[in-house]
Amino acid sequence: MRRRGKRARSGAGPERAMPEAAQAESAPSEISVIAYTDEAFEERKGVSVDEIAAYLDRPGVVWIDVNGLGSPAAVERICALYKLHPLTIEDALTANMRPKLDVFDGYASVVFEMFYLHGDGPEVVTEKVSLVFGPRFVLSFQEKPIRDVFDPVRGDIRSRRGRIRKAGADHLAYSLVDAVVDNYLVVLDRLSEDMEAVEDEVLATPTQETLRRMHALRNQIIFLRKSAWPLRDVLDRLQHDAEDLVAPGTVPYLRDLSAHTAQVMEQIEVMRDIVTNMLELYLSSLSYNLNSVLKRLTLITTIFMPLSVLAGVGGMSEWTMMTGAHNWWWTYPLFLLGLVGVGAASYLWLKKKNWV
Amino acid sequence: MRRRGKRARSGAGPERAMPEAAQAESAPSEISVIAYTDEAFEERKGVSVDEIAAYLDRPGVVWIDVNGLGSPAAVERICALYKLHPLTIEDALTANMRPKLDVFDGYASVVFEMFYLHGDGPEVVTEKVSLVFGPRFVLSFQEKPIRDVFDPVRGDIRSRRGRIRKAGADHLAYSLVDAVVDNYLVVLDRLSEDMEAVEDEVLATPTQETLRRMHALRNQIIFLRKSAWPLRDVLDRLQHDAEDLVAPGTVPYLRDLSAHTAQVMEQIEVMRDIVTNMLELYLSSLSYNLNSVLKRLTLITTIFMPLSVLAGVGGMSEWTMMTGAHNWWWTYPLFLLGLVGVGAASYLWLKKKNWV
Amino acid sequence: MRRRGKRARSGAGPERAMPEAAQAESAPSEISVIAYTDEAFEERKGVSVDEIAAYLDRPGVVWIDVNGLGSPAAVERICALYKLHPLTIEDALTANMRPKLDVFDGYASVVFEMFYLHGDGPEVVTEKVSLVFGPRFVLSFQEKPIRDVFDPVRGDIRSRRGRIRKAGADHLAYSLVDAVVDNYLVVLDRLSEDMEAVEDEVLATPTQETLRRMHALRNQIIFLRKSAWPLRDVLDRLQHDAEDLVAPGTVPYLRDLSAHTAQVMEQIEVMRDIVTNMLELYLSSLSYNLNSVLKRLTLITTIFMPLSVLAGVGGMSEWTMMTGAHNWWWTYPLFLLGLVGVGAASYLWLKKKNWV
Amino acid sequence: MRRRGKRARSGAGPERAMPEAAQAESAPSEISVIAYTDEAFEERKGVSVDEIAAYLDRPGVVWIDVNGLGSPAAVERICALYKLHPLTIEDALTANMRPKLDVFDGYASVVFEMFYLHGDGPEVVTEKVSLVFGPRFVLSFQEKPIRDVFDPVRGDIRSRRGRIRKAGADHLAYSLVDAVVDNYLVVLDRLSEDMEAVEDEVLATPTQETLRRMHALRNQIIFLRKSAWPLRDVLDRLQHDAEDLVAPGTVPYLRDLSAHTAQVMEQIEVMRDIVTNMLELYLSSLSYNLNSVLKRLTLITTIFMPLSVLAGVGGMSEWTMMTGAHNWWWTYPLFLLGLVGVGAASYLWLKKKNWV
Amino acid sequence: MRRRGKRARSGAGPERAMPEAAQAESAPSEISVIAYTDEAFEERKGVSVDEIAAYLDRPGVVWIDVNGLGSPAAVERICALYKLHPLTIEDALTANMRPKLDVFDGYASVVFEMFYLHGDGPEVVTEKVSLVFGPRFVLSFQEKPIRDVFDPVRGDIRSRRGRIRKAGADHLAYSLVDAVVDNYLVVLDRLSEDMEAVEDEVLATPTQETLRRMHALRNQIIFLRKSAWPLRDVLDRLQHDAEDLVAPGTVPYLRDLSAHTAQVMEQIEVMRDIVTNMLELYLSSLSYNLNSVLKRLTLITTIFMPLSVLAGVGGMSEWTMMTGAHNWWWTYPLFLLGLVGVGAASYLWLKKKNWV
Repeated sequence: MRRRGKRARSGAGPERAMPEAAQAESAPSEISVIAYTDEAFEERKGVSVDEIAAYLDRPGVVWIDVNGLGSPAAVERICALYKLHPLTIEDALTANMRPKLDVFDGYASVVFEMFYLHGDGPEVVTEKVSLVFGPRFVLSFQEKPIRDVFDPVRGDIRSRRGRIRKAGADHLAYSLVDAVVDNYLVVLDRLSEDMEAVEDEVLATPTQETLRRMHALRNQIIFLRKSAWPLRDVLDRLQHDAEDLVAPGTVPYLRDLSAHTAQVMEQIEVMRDIVTNMLELYLSSLSYNLNSVLKRLTLITTIFMPLSVLAGVGGMSEWTMMTGAHNWWWTYPLFLLGLVGVGAASYLWLKKKNWV
Repeated sequence: MRRRGKRARSGAGPERAMPEAAQAESAPSEISVIAYTDEAFEERKGVSVDEIAAYLDRPGVVWIDVNGLGSPAAVERICALYKLHPLTIEDALTANMRPKLDVFDGYASVVFEMFYLHGDGPEVVTEKVSLVFGPRFVLSFQEKPIRDVFDPVRGDIRSRRGRIRKAGADHLAYSLVDAVVDNYLVVLDRLSEDMEAVEDEVLATPTQETLRRMHALRNQIIFLRKSAWPLRDVLDRLQHDAEDLVAPGTVPYLRDLSAHTAQVMEQIEVMRDIVTNMLELYLSSLSYNLNSVLKRLTLITTIFMPLSVLAGVGGMSEWTMMTGAHNWWWTYPLFLLGLVGVGAASYLWLKKKNWV
Repeated sequence: MRRRGKRARSGAGPERAMPEAAQAESAPSEISVIAYTDEAFEERKGVSVDEIAAYLDRPGVVWIDVNGLGSPAAVERICALYKLHPLTIEDALTANMRPKLDVFDGYASVVFEMFYLHGDGPEVVTEKVSLVFGPRFVLSFQEKPIRDVFDPVRGDIRSRRGRIRKAGADHLAYSLVDAVVDNYLVVLDRLSEDMEAVEDEVLATPTQETLRRMHALRNQIIFLRKSAWPLRDVLDRLQHDAEDLVAPGTVPYLRDLSAHTAQVMEQIEVMRDIVTNMLELYLSSLSYNLNSVLKRLTLITTIFMPLSVLAGVGGMSEWTMMTGAHNWWWTYPLFLLGLVGVGAASYLWLKKKNWV
Repeated sequence: MRRRGKRARSGAGPERAMPEAAQAESAPSEISVIAYTDEAFEERKGVSVDEIAAYLDRPGVVWIDVNGLGSPAAVERICALYKLHPLTIEDALTANMRPKLDVFDGYASVVFEMFYLHGDGPEVVTEKVSLVFGPRFVLSFQEKPIRDVFDPVRGDIRSRRGRIRKAGADHLAYSLVDAVVDNYLVVLDRLSEDMEAVEDEVLATPTQETLRRMHALRNQIIFLRKSAWPLRDVLDRLQHDAEDLVAPGTVPYLRDLSAHTAQVMEQIEVMRDIVTNMLELYLSSLSYNLNSVLKRLTLITTIFMPLSVLAGVGGMSEWTMMTGAHNWWWTYPLFLLGLVGVGAASYLWLKKKNWV
Repeated sequence: MRRRGKRARSGAGPERAMPEAAQAESAPSEISVIAYTDEAFEERKGVSVDEIAAYLDRPGVVWIDVNGLGSPAAVERICALYKLHPLTIEDALTANMRPKLDVFDGYASVVFEMFYLHGDGPEVVTEKVSLVFGPRFVLSFQEKPIRDVFDPVRGDIRSRRGRIRKAGADHLAYSLVDAVVDNYLVVLDRLSEDMEAVEDEVLATPTQETLRRMHALRNQIIFLRKSAWPLRDVLDRLQHDAEDLVAPGTVPYLRDLSAHTAQVMEQIEVMRDIVTNMLELYLSSLSYNLNSVLKRLTLITTIFMPLSVLAGVGGMSEWTMMTGAHNWWWTYPLFLLGLVGVGAASYLWLKKKNWV
């Protein structure tokens, strides 16, 4: 209740890495409808709320896709047509929610998050999607008007590919979630490539910038992990709690999807471990370099500081006077030779002690 | 038993970050009553204990809110009116408890913690709230006289917003906990903002103060986590153990609240991970800077220390005498040129070795 | 079997922090008996084993407290009177055991550990306590003759406070464990205070001593954790496995105690997290200071090392001769001015590069 | 659906350490058939898809091994012959999958990963294997045409070793997985040897190269862990979910295999812990060395820097003049003696303070 | 299958710390038999396989102890006499296995690992033991001919101590495992003592050697943990899965043993935590010392480097000439005083800034 606004703000932390555009205010809802049976197929875009009532008793499966949450009144009217519970309506309208499953009389509501790549960096944009499916209908509410992830499913329906036109609304719902999970792997592949590029930097010439990229990657992985983690639980529960809504023929597909999601999670975990290893490699390299630099500093100091004292001592007039050095031409070269000798001895001593 | 005082003290560690005012001795209890049915509504403040008996048989829902635990005798008398178990009374009077659920004959007792923001920093004040609800009544015992978190619920009751006036005491209890969890997200948003500010500092110019702010944030998150963690378990058990007290229509709301709490927990976990990452970024930056500083030091030393020895050697009177340098005007500039040359050679050598 | 001695020794690691006195050989057992019904009450100290048989058929509850395990023969005779299993007798006589619950025909045996504060530091002394309770009797076997933790229970019995005189042996057993858990919080409070003192040191002027105190605290917390952790499991199982021995009226108290123990555990976990944070703060502070010290060192070196070379060069007699400087009074101040200028330039350059 | 390509790419991260050759495009499928009863045995290589239909009703067990996934059409036709579910066909054709078990009517499908050693380094090549077994047949689909891991099983069948010729297709399936798990241990042994070599380096003369080898080992272990982890779950579920397909006599073998897999997992965990310890040993050694180097630097500086100043002061002409030192032959040796004395005093002072 | 050799090698990593002798090839099996009833007792050593058949129908309990796995044929014949499953025989003959329990018709097979101390260091030798017990017999197969751990059990049987002669084969099996677990604590005590010695070193004068001892301890603990961890699960399952073989009177003993094993595990965990703390203490001490050393270095440099420049400047002949210093006897002491003054001022400035 009343929490719509607050919740929307509450994920500000991790979303921060996202570009402004993607965070813009929800656009006005754009409604498209696809209705199909095994034989018939109809697709319409820019449908008005009033026209939707006509689809209520249509045979076959009706998929109503609401893109953008900028028209809450329209969303509420559609939900009312399908007699959804107030909590489901709230879920449809709330931005930035945790993946979850709710089963009500006659329909199930699945909330999850899509990931999109944005630009060239490791920036990942998320979009909350709320999916409601009953025996003959699927409602999908997308937070932002980005559309491509569901396009392959539209293509399958249009061209009667696979099982989708023969199966019911449960298979359509499965296909939509499957498209999303397929897209997760695209995102993870991109992050993997970024990780490899950063790892190469760490192994070659790590800089402060490398560190920042690693940091950004880690935060991104934390963020993905949080969004993807509850999804597997949702899918497992879907098989058990919504059995009235899921046809037996769809169960193997849900199980496959569940395994698929497990693979996504494991890959995220592996990436997390690898990026942690990279950071430790980075730090260890710094430590190793620190040692090397200090050894060089100590080498220079050990060789030249005594020479400096010797030069000072040798330059005293007393030495000259006492030894009468100014009379003997060979004293000076001898002294220089002595300096070089002391320096070489220092170096050899350090070498022998394995201190260089 | 007897543990009231001890327990109150026992959380001293984490509460320490809180301002004195908020820790002050429990204020004298202030009692307010809201009684409503779908049609009727009555709200009174500053009710005396004796007047409460009159509400026992009132139709509809009665909500007695006791603010401040400074009058244990009054609390005990109210509890006696509603025939609460001695352990429930003890819970109502004890400060600083772990969230928990107890189901007794005819009522359930829920203990949880509220968080409030205090001032501008990441200081979070907590308040233990004990909620007892039966078929027709809700008793709420607040530790400290801070009131605003429950105000939206009062507003809903007054203006008949939503389902609350139509539903029973279980929905009121749900609404109160919901208001608290909503407020958690406000607190987390504030901490997220602080975290972002600190992260900016870490990325720009980290100081010792940045370190302290990170440390304070980490302790704050540990503290929130400990307080929020058991709440989800409480809500899950409420659906199962207190089924006599919870109407079927309220169950979806409880489930929603439970998912909501899971989101709070996940956000806390994410914040914990991010602040840990930040600390590691901080430390890695320091290590990187350490390397840079040492490289500069080594550079200076490697260039100038040999020059110092050369200058000492060159300044010896023997050199002058032997070479008869005082006769030739060009020896001195030549020597200087030699010095510069040696210095430049050192620099180039370091450069080539990639040691600068 | 035969493991008494070995087991006693086997906790040597953590117990090490304890003072000698507390580790002394088990003192001769001192037996005291409290027998009571709701109306009657009898308390005797220094009871001999032979006298105990007389209490076997006494109506009401009999509590036999054996303090010190120095007289194994006496302990074995008492256990034989109550027909305890050989394993229970072994448990009663073994020092340093893990908390556990065993339910036998007609009685349950609970083993747990008490913590005592010792002296002013964070030193915590532990004592294994073995509690055996049947329908009408409680036997308590304390390892060391330290008595005060059970005193409040004695006081409750004497003065008929609370429910204890009306309830059975199960409530007495509950009260004894409750007294122990209450005492845990006292110990944790003390450690919390120590932690705060150490944290203040870390934030102000950390020394090597601070590090040692943190280390001692961490080990202490590990030790407490190990001892307290299994207790909650014991209490949970007590409600389920020993239901013949526990009256329904006692169950809410056990549940309360179980929640209470959960709170102890969570506080220990929080303390563990906080002390880990403190150590990381300490290390980060050291790193930060290291950077600062090195920057100062680099500053000094960068400014004065070139000056040293210049002074060496300037002091050469050639310079004097070539410039005829000894004739012009202003050459020397000019040279000094030049030195200061070079030093200032170095400083400003470092400043500009943000290297100071 | 449609995910074949994407999934194949999606493991790019960890597979990266693998040689190009092993990642080459799937080779054209090569089909071999082994058919046997207790008495009869037939083995054919290079079987065409059309010939397989002849084996469908053959008595005894038929094992069809498809090596290389380069001919999807052939794979699909074989699967169609055995009436496999579309999802099973997809699994057979997808590269780089997570181990999983699917039970359909009349057959079970097991997916797992093989590990091969590649070359001399710690490089491990993986190959996805999909195994489908029904009452009288086993289909195995290997991603890459590497064959030796299954050879011992072929040998057992040929020479009637053990139980395999007497048992059914379930035992053959068990034997194939068992051969794979046996091979895991060979791989782990090799990694263990690498780890020991690296550990020797860390203890003797750690270099930057040692660090990289540790890093490569860690990533390799993360990768193995991810691949092996789900296998145990698969084996456990095989005993429960596929009970129609598994003869009672095979159950102990599956249990043994499951324990065997648990051992693999534990060894991987131990290796992970050990390599983490090694890294910490490496870092601690670096820290220790850093301290040693710095102590030496401080020693040199503390001894010679004051001497340098003294030599400078002693070299001033004023000293000579004031003391008339040029008249006394002993002043110069005395001064030198003084220098040596000051140096020795510095050294002893450092020694006494335990700063060297 | 066929995995005997491989498995034996596969634990090479952790076993590496062990002395050569203990890893020697399995010695020829030495068979001893103890047969007893409550009244009768017979013990024979060096029994041949042929003689064992005679014990098959002997009343009471027969314990056949096979020491050393060097004679696989003998082991196989014994197993055949008792009709053991091929997998059990394989387990008996395989070196280096994970603890596990297998229940077959008429007998149960328990595999676990013994630890022995070797020499004075923290070196722990392990030996796999396989125990098979049926209603009237116990077969024990020890990998290496080290015998003492079972000796106390032999003594109990000989001298009719405790329950063993009255109870069945299940109690004998319990006693043997109990003897092994008792021995774990002896090993842990020794490691605890080593840990304390190392901790004293860390607190006093940590060296590189201390670091290596810590590293060896950590690896040893990882190794023990891996071996002991599955044992508790084995014991828990023994109570549930092998209930036909375990008399009710033995169950409390198994439960006690299970709790005992839990204590071993907890102590290992505590040791792991403590050794981790020690390592962090070590590293923190190094960091602290690094800071101290660097502060001293900075102190020396800050004081003497300016003095060096001053001495250089003061030694220039121009100064002498300009000031006519050679005429005034007080200039030189004044200059020296000035130097000391500058040095003292530097020191006081550092002191004031709290930089020393």
